Amino acid sequence: MAPVTFHLPVWFDLGATFAFAITGALAGMQRRYDIVGVFFLALASSIGGALLRDGVFIQTGRPTPLLTDDRYIQVITLATLLGALVGGHVKRFRRTIAVIDAVGLGAYAVFGTQKSLTAGLAVPAALLVGVVNAAGGGLLRDLITREEPLVFKPGQFYVLTALAGGVVFVFLTAWVGVPATRAALIAIAITFVFRMLSILFNWRTAPFGEADTPPTP
Amino acid sequence: MAPVTFHLPVWFDLGATFAFAITGALAGMQRRYDIVGVFFLALASSIGGALLRDGVFIQTGRPTPLLTDDRYIQVITLATLLGALVGGHVKRFRRTIAVIDAVGLGAYAVFGTQKSLTAGLAVPAALLVGVVNAAGGGLLRDLITREEPLVFKPGQFYVLTALAGGVVFVFLTAWVGVPATRAALIAIAITFVFRMLSILFNWRTAPFGEADTPPTP
Amino acid sequence: MAPVTFHLPVWFDLGATFAFAITGALAGMQRRYDIVGVFFLALASSIGGALLRDGVFIQTGRPTPLLTDDRYIQVITLATLLGALVGGHVKRFRRTIAVIDAVGLGAYAVFGTQKSLTAGLAVPAALLVGVVNAAGGGLLRDLITREEPLVFKPGQFYVLTALAGGVVFVFLTAWVGVPATRAALIAIAITFVFRMLSILFNWRTAPFGEADTPPTP
Repeated sequence: MAPVTFHLPVWFDLGATFAFAITGALAGMQRRYDIVGVFFLALASSIGGALLRDGVFIQTGRPTPLLTDDRYIQVITLATLLGALVGGHVKRFRRTIAVIDAVGLGAYAVFGTQKSLTAGLAVPAALLVGVVNAAGGGLLRDLITREEPLVFKPGQFYVLTALAGGVVFVFLTAWVGVPATRAALIAIAITFVFRMLSILFNWRTAPFGEADTPPTP
Repeated sequence: MAPVTFHLPVWFDLGATFAFAITGALAGMQRRYDIVGVFFLALASSIGGALLRDGVFIQTGRPTPLLTDDRYIQVITLATLLGALVGGHVKRFRRTIAVIDAVGLGAYAVFGTQKSLTAGLAVPAALLVGVVNAAGGGLLRDLITREEPLVFKPGQFYVLTALAGGVVFVFLTAWVGVPATRAALIAIAITFVFRMLSILFNWRTAPFGEADTPPTP
Repeated sequence: MAPVTFHLPVWFDLGATFAFAITGALAGMQRRYDIVGVFFLALASSIGGALLRDGVFIQTGRPTPLLTDDRYIQVITLATLLGALVGGHVKRFRRTIAVIDAVGLGAYAVFGTQKSLTAGLAVPAALLVGVVNAAGGGLLRDLITREEPLVFKPGQFYVLTALAGGVVFVFLTAWVGVPATRAALIAIAITFVFRMLSILFNWRTAPFGEADTPPTP
């Protein structure tokens, strides 16, 4: 495996955590949760995917940096409190959040894939963990609020764009020999464009297979 | 960080495990689960928070003591079987259970916070894991039985009392320099009184923020 | 503890993964999930129990072999794609799947129990993890699809047959001194017969205890 040294800039990581935490906090407020529920939903939505990555899939014998660094929980707390202030006005920022989300989707898919490869995971598993890193927060949020996970149902391309980012990154670093940081930026850009086009043109997945066809009379 | 050496007495730990397991077993019986379901609900309700603490949040590279010590599973099995015998009569013990629960809430918040600090977690994350240790069992129980988690909704102060216990413990040990065991007892006592007052006077949290206000006409 | 050296043959492990993944894929297709949802349900149904075993219960400080070996994710991907092709025709294979499932139930209960003992878990906890290994995939599948877990409700003996397999294995190796591989085969055979008889004669568990009896007038 080529030397893998792509790092997410910490300002980006904390900024994306903040943005995802805001969306989680709003989801909690819409469900009339109290401050505890709103905070935990903000937490799950923002660093839930990374906690699954480090806490369940990659076992290093050390706590995840998300918990040894003060700032993640502080940023999520801030987002929770800010959520209460901005409340419904956040709709104005909907497009901004969609853009941050689309950048984050690729960034975490690449980062999670790379971290998994470094930890010794096989390529297919590393791509899987990258996707969990990128989209796991939304999955946890849906499970906690007892929604059937949206990411599993037909809808705009989301998880598949994250997967595309991971695949591009692995292809460029391991097969083409592109340095990690440059490969990461390319992969994030491709994911971003793919996701933006999916939103613009409403590209959607379909139900898979035909297991449930009604019987012919 | 000051030397941190507070240990939960094992009789307390096993006793609290037993009490929480009984409440979980009863919840399972009320849902007409079979012995497997009743046992697993007793397990999740009693050591679920500690399993999340050691299995997901704190990564030490070694199995949690809850699984290397015979007695926890034995105590939960006993509570499951006893649940079937006492059944509806447990209502008589409702107040006893509320008291044990209130002691356990502070004890596990402090113990989980301390264990997290020892493992190298930052203070905000350690407080979070303390809360998960104290209240995570109830959260898991609700997720398994497909209830929307009660702890996230407006209700009597519960998670926040656990958080208060963790905050008091960290404040006393790290800032004031109180020895760990004395700080723990103070924190547990404060949590207990706070929780008891919340029950007595029905102190409640409110929905957080105002994200969902109906539009004015 | 006697020397514990039972290994699941890799062809069996991959074959069982394939069979369980097919059942998960079909469950996802019946719910009209898209390819992402069908794949994740196939993943949870096939290696979910093993991921819980290695990722939450046994902490070794190293990633699970299920993720460092390419083949598991490949087999699950194949099962997902095949699920779309065979679709409704899989009903013809229902009996075949029930047989594979019954073999897998004992095999994973024994393997999970043994791996837990090797990692230093106490016997009751090791039996628990064996059961999670054997039946955890179905539990995760139900939680994800927001079904109340079937394995917790009265029904044909399933989890208890897995537990029987683990108990027989521990009894034979630790108390009787039977070599691990022979003990494993005996335990798997007993589990298989017990499960097959439960299906044939519809042996069922009952609701546990009587917590919820209506009051007599």
